[in-house]
Amino acid sequence: MNFIDIIRKKRDGFELTKEEIEYFAFSAADDSVPDYQLSAMLMAMFLNGLNETETLNLTDAMSRSGDMADLSEIEGIKGDKHSTGGVGDKTTLIVAPIVAECGVKIAKMSGRGLGHTGGTVDKLESVPGFRTSLSTNEFTDIVNRCGLCVAGQSGKLCPADKKLYGLRDVTATVDNIPLIASSIMSKKLAGGADCIVLDVKCGSGAFMKDEESAKLLAEKMVEIGRGAGRKIAALITDMDVPLGHNIGNSLEIIEAVEALKGNGPDDLTGISILLAAKLLQLAGKGDFNECKALAKSKIDDGSALKKLAEMVKLQGGNPDYIFNTDLFPKAKFECEITAWDSGYINHMNAEGIGSVCVELGAGRLRKEDKIDPSAGIILSKKTGDRVEIGEKIAVLYCSDEKMFDSAKCKFIDSVTIGIEETKKNDVLIDIVE
Amino acid sequence: MNFIDIIRKKRDGFELTKEEIEYFAFSAADDSVPDYQLSAMLMAMFLNGLNETETLNLTDAMSRSGDMADLSEIEGIKGDKHSTGGVGDKTTLIVAPIVAECGVKIAKMSGRGLGHTGGTVDKLESVPGFRTSLSTNEFTDIVNRCGLCVAGQSGKLCPADKKLYGLRDVTATVDNIPLIASSIMSKKLAGGADCIVLDVKCGSGAFMKDEESAKLLAEKMVEIGRGAGRKIAALITDMDVPLGHNIGNSLEIIEAVEALKGNGPDDLTGISILLAAKLLQLAGKGDFNECKALAKSKIDDGSALKKLAEMVKLQGGNPDYIFNTDLFPKAKFECEITAWDSGYINHMNAEGIGSVCVELGAGRLRKEDKIDPSAGIILSKKTGDRVEIGEKIAVLYCSDEKMFDSAKCKFIDSVTIGIEETKKNDVLIDIVE
Repeated sequence: MNFIDIIRKKRDGFELTKEEIEYFAFSAADDSVPDYQLSAMLMAMFLNGLNETETLNLTDAMSRSGDMADLSEIEGIKGDKHSTGGVGDKTTLIVAPIVAECGVKIAKMSGRGLGHTGGTVDKLESVPGFRTSLSTNEFTDIVNRCGLCVAGQSGKLCPADKKLYGLRDVTATVDNIPLIASSIMSKKLAGGADCIVLDVKCGSGAFMKDEESAKLLAEKMVEIGRGAGRKIAALITDMDVPLGHNIGNSLEIIEAVEALKGNGPDDLTGISILLAAKLLQLAGKGDFNECKALAKSKIDDGSALKKLAEMVKLQGGNPDYIFNTDLFPKAKFECEITAWDSGYINHMNAEGIGSVCVELGAGRLRKEDKIDPSAGIILSKKTGDRVEIGEKIAVLYCSDEKMFDSAKCKFIDSVTIGIEETKKNDVLIDIVE
Repeated sequence: MNFIDIIRKKRDGFELTKEEIEYFAFSAADDSVPDYQLSAMLMAMFLNGLNETETLNLTDAMSRSGDMADLSEIEGIKGDKHSTGGVGDKTTLIVAPIVAECGVKIAKMSGRGLGHTGGTVDKLESVPGFRTSLSTNEFTDIVNRCGLCVAGQSGKLCPADKKLYGLRDVTATVDNIPLIASSIMSKKLAGGADCIVLDVKCGSGAFMKDEESAKLLAEKMVEIGRGAGRKIAALITDMDVPLGHNIGNSLEIIEAVEALKGNGPDDLTGISILLAAKLLQLAGKGDFNECKALAKSKIDDGSALKKLAEMVKLQGGNPDYIFNTDLFPKAKFECEITAWDSGYINHMNAEGIGSVCVELGAGRLRKEDKIDPSAGIILSKKTGDRVEIGEKIAVLYCSDEKMFDSAKCKFIDSVTIGIEETKKNDVLIDIVE
């Protein structure tokens, strides 16, 4: 097979065969086709599109381009949950223990945060001793023992996606629904779960800025998952405003624990219960309403919190931090931001606020950046809230006082206070299944 | 300027500014943008197109991406002639001395042959001693002394085109009119001539297989040349059958000399006079008919032949070879091909015949291949000719007898003999000006 002929075929708008798409994905994985040919193909795919079959074949080929998670030693139904990324999104820390407590195994491989969105693995590592780098045996053993394990993603999972994602990032071929969907879903298929619930975020803090594109992406991913024989559904949820109040690694663990104790903010608890319920429903635990009640009961009886602590312990972390979050070290410095006007919070640019967090040390701009677990923001007010001039809106946390000047300005730039009353968005926008 | 933003702009179908196109071309020339970004841009340009202004700007930027020929020391009007490449196309060897003899200076830089088409520089080098690698001073001096010089193309001319052409070749982005036109015309603009005649070949031995695309290419190139302030016209000519009878380096010199003596085949002499006349007309030497008569007179009086010999001598070659072509060494082996059937030559695949010549040693598949100056083919019959079974069609010439088996088969595959009478094509198809 000659790769130039395959590029020409897509360039001329023809459908690629399964074999041609495999050649593309496997060559990307083993570097046997040069980058300039891969990027010409990516632009041809971007502009001429990939139909349903091609997208499914690309996802399948990328998922098989490296190691695949072997969950065969794990008994029972395996569930997975994936978010397209948002600011303050700590739902995995709440959903996973609830679902595991209901008997659906969560053997989850999770990425690290990059840019303005955080990663579950980074958040969990703020618990002293917690290990996310696990051997296959350890991973399987922990899931079999407590029903739940969250490990870092192996470098050998989906190398084709890793390569192509890197190229897309520098060739203006990122924002394309089939390419985004196949990138995400290849990792989910390689992860091996039977049931998958997707949280497709939408709004100023999300990759998808509008409902229409979020819905198209959700539909495409559900189509791929179903085509690959998985039980799958997607919730489209609001990310125009950060989720909950806390943003930053240990700050988000603290808020997730509060939610598991029944004291979480409504938006966070609400969407976590819906995500857990949808995953339980896919796993055959009842209809959606029954599953919602089941999920809620695991918060009410404290068992989901205990499950999270159990997982933390099995992964080498100190479970005392879960039962008593006061143990988490505080950031060295804090800086209160007060309202510069009276009125309503008309808008919060969630991406802007996520970027302020990165600047404070809570996230990474480059893969090799180090994270400060205690850095971040606690919001007292969010879009739709009434504020009086001088009233506290947020507190910024950082280990380096010098960072506050610029961070404060950027935070203020991300928030609009106006006189008109503003409606709070519902967190759940739509369900695609 | 961020190159990813420029790719995105073309990807989304917007017109690029002059500055953006210059950034692209100059970055290609100095390798400051990686190949994978250049190739993504080339595919976006291929699929979303370049309008007239963009194409002109790209050509202009590529022409200025390296050294430009400095013809300021050459007096009078400078003319150039370019062919898009064909089999047996030795017209430059006839047109250039005719035009120079009429007082229009020909300071020509010419490429080497690659693939099934030959290059003028390779042909001239079959004259012992002939040098094509000249300093700027030598080049200028020779033109000023005899009105004519044909040198090899400097490696520093249009480095952007060199880079982008190489990438297009391996990313399925070659066959696109604006990209082809800007590639050819960037070298013509850098070459510095005031008047340019283009010979756009069309048919089985040409890059453009059909009249429609040949005409589009011709129009685009004329548009660019005129936009850059040059006097320019294009002849669209038939390349469905090789031009003349001789193919191969010294064989083509011999046939060109015959044409300059007035003994050339009609198709070759005819198109050479038309090309010369059009260039003379552009240079203000009269109307087209006057210029045809003027061109013909330079064959009839033998002055064009003397001009060629004069140039050969000034470039270090032995002019005796021009006046007595029997001096050219013969190929060591020859192989006659006779008709396998009686009837008419219905079709000759000119590209196929060109490839047989390369196999015999007359051309290159890779840039570093060596050329055998005496190798090639002399055709006795061409499309439209009547043949009787056993009658000679062609003779193949080669230094290695072992090559004949395969070459003979391929030659026979390239020729169709049938019972229906076939019309000979006119060589001139159209004129674009």
